[in-house]
Amino acid sequence: MLLDALELIGIAAFAASGAVAAVRARLDVFGVVVIALTTALGGGALRDVLLGVHPPTNLVTWPYLLVASVTGVVVFRFHPALARLRRSVLLLDAVGLGLFVTSGTSTALALGVPAYAACLVGMTTGIGGGALRDVLLREIPLVLRREIYAVAALAGAAVVAAGDRLGLPAGLTALAGSALIVALRLVALWRRWNAPVPKEH
Amino acid sequence: MLLDALELIGIAAFAASGAVAAVRARLDVFGVVVIALTTALGGGALRDVLLGVHPPTNLVTWPYLLVASVTGVVVFRFHPALARLRRSVLLLDAVGLGLFVTSGTSTALALGVPAYAACLVGMTTGIGGGALRDVLLREIPLVLRREIYAVAALAGAAVVAAGDRLGLPAGLTALAGSALIVALRLVALWRRWNAPVPKEH
Amino acid sequence: MLLDALELIGIAAFAASGAVAAVRARLDVFGVVVIALTTALGGGALRDVLLGVHPPTNLVTWPYLLVASVTGVVVFRFHPALARLRRSVLLLDAVGLGLFVTSGTSTALALGVPAYAACLVGMTTGIGGGALRDVLLREIPLVLRREIYAVAALAGAAVVAAGDRLGLPAGLTALAGSALIVALRLVALWRRWNAPVPKEH
Repeated sequence: MLLDALELIGIAAFAASGAVAAVRARLDVFGVVVIALTTALGGGALRDVLLGVHPPTNLVTWPYLLVASVTGVVVFRFHPALARLRRSVLLLDAVGLGLFVTSGTSTALALGVPAYAACLVGMTTGIGGGALRDVLLREIPLVLRREIYAVAALAGAAVVAAGDRLGLPAGLTALAGSALIVALRLVALWRRWNAPVPKEH
Repeated sequence: MLLDALELIGIAAFAASGAVAAVRARLDVFGVVVIALTTALGGGALRDVLLGVHPPTNLVTWPYLLVASVTGVVVFRFHPALARLRRSVLLLDAVGLGLFVTSGTSTALALGVPAYAACLVGMTTGIGGGALRDVLLREIPLVLRREIYAVAALAGAAVVAAGDRLGLPAGLTALAGSALIVALRLVALWRRWNAPVPKEH
Repeated sequence: MLLDALELIGIAAFAASGAVAAVRARLDVFGVVVIALTTALGGGALRDVLLGVHPPTNLVTWPYLLVASVTGVVVFRFHPALARLRRSVLLLDAVGLGLFVTSGTSTALALGVPAYAACLVGMTTGIGGGALRDVLLREIPLVLRREIYAVAALAGAAVVAAGDRLGLPAGLTALAGSALIVALRLVALWRRWNAPVPKEH
């Protein structure tokens, strides 16, 4: 129940991060919705494909589709207030990352995958949607450009895996792991806030 | 039987769209064939991976491989007559989109997937191959640049899902859905035929 | 046993090819490790997803993860000696291609896939990791730019399939197929060594 709510929040956050990036790339409203859906549902679909859950949960849960689509339309409609905020993509991306990494790790553990592989599946769940977003928009994926990205995801996944081993409640460790990921990302963003970003070539 | 024939036509159309795009990107004959195969078989392989059909039908049906490869070679051989025709990619892409969206939706419905998710799987089937083509050739995917692309796919998928609900023959609704998609795409192309395309950045 | 050792060597070779490419793209150490993991494990994960092996062998075999990660770190640490060597990516890529194509073909045959489809799965296994590497780094995939790439992969896969049909030992034909692929790639590289590479646009 708590995990379901967190999943919805993660979907909205990633949908918004995708929609803002799509608006910045000057796509029309349909392109924005497609990117919102892909960013929000891509990581979880990848998780289910890797784990053999057919059809992927994300594609047959209509509230997920609804939330992601509506988020895309809302961002498109109000983009004059959002489009220049590069930071907002990064913030939303951090929240989505935290929630998806932990839910992906939990799902893999529940299916009996070994802990280290569950961490990898969780990282893929969290990173996959954003990587698809960036590849489709022809940007180098965030995970490759930001130092603390993959490490933050790994740390959060490890918290969930350790909590599972210790028999702690899944909802609790998911929250703790998510909070850790968001905190690490925000610290990383804050520390580099004014740092020069290396020129891409 | 009718559906099998339509699938072959869709494969040839998408293979040709991929091959023309690859020729325009100045790839050699092997690169052209790889892109033709990827464009023609990628969407259906994605559909089967999402639905848990292993190994994907597209990869174990040799006429599909043959048709896609031969189409690639033919386009490469006769590209002087084709290479400048940007429109031909768009036309072939419309036919492939129509046939793949409807066949993907039908397949998902036959496996008991809910109607709205079947529409999403159908859209993914139709959009996936072309998106792979564009990502591999480093272009922003058509689906993101053309207003009526995703909507046309959704409309055709909805026709198939509605026909299934009403108990109409699958071949008939697949044809109707495909025709609707192709018509919507052609109208969209015709209306924008001379419209300035926004500069990419 | 022999096949297991070959798989490890292929993983190290592809991890190194990914890491060198990532270093050339000026990624930081974490980005380099992510690209090393993706290049080394991506093709095999794709193979298992296509064949319905859940979760993918690559993700639950910790020596693979360890070898790929360590290779990434080592390449990053010693990149001043490696970074300018564009050739080293191509050489390592050839070795990884040979080993992955043959292991992918063998795996598919063992699961009862028809020979021609097993060749396609093997080619996808060999080409998939490098294609992911190139897409993530925004380069046109090697397989599309190098004439003998897809053909070499196909030839090696055919050797494995023919050996299987003739009842020859799998380890032997895998070695022969790998050697053929590496030889074809090296000849192709040597012949074009000083040839002008067409300007990308």
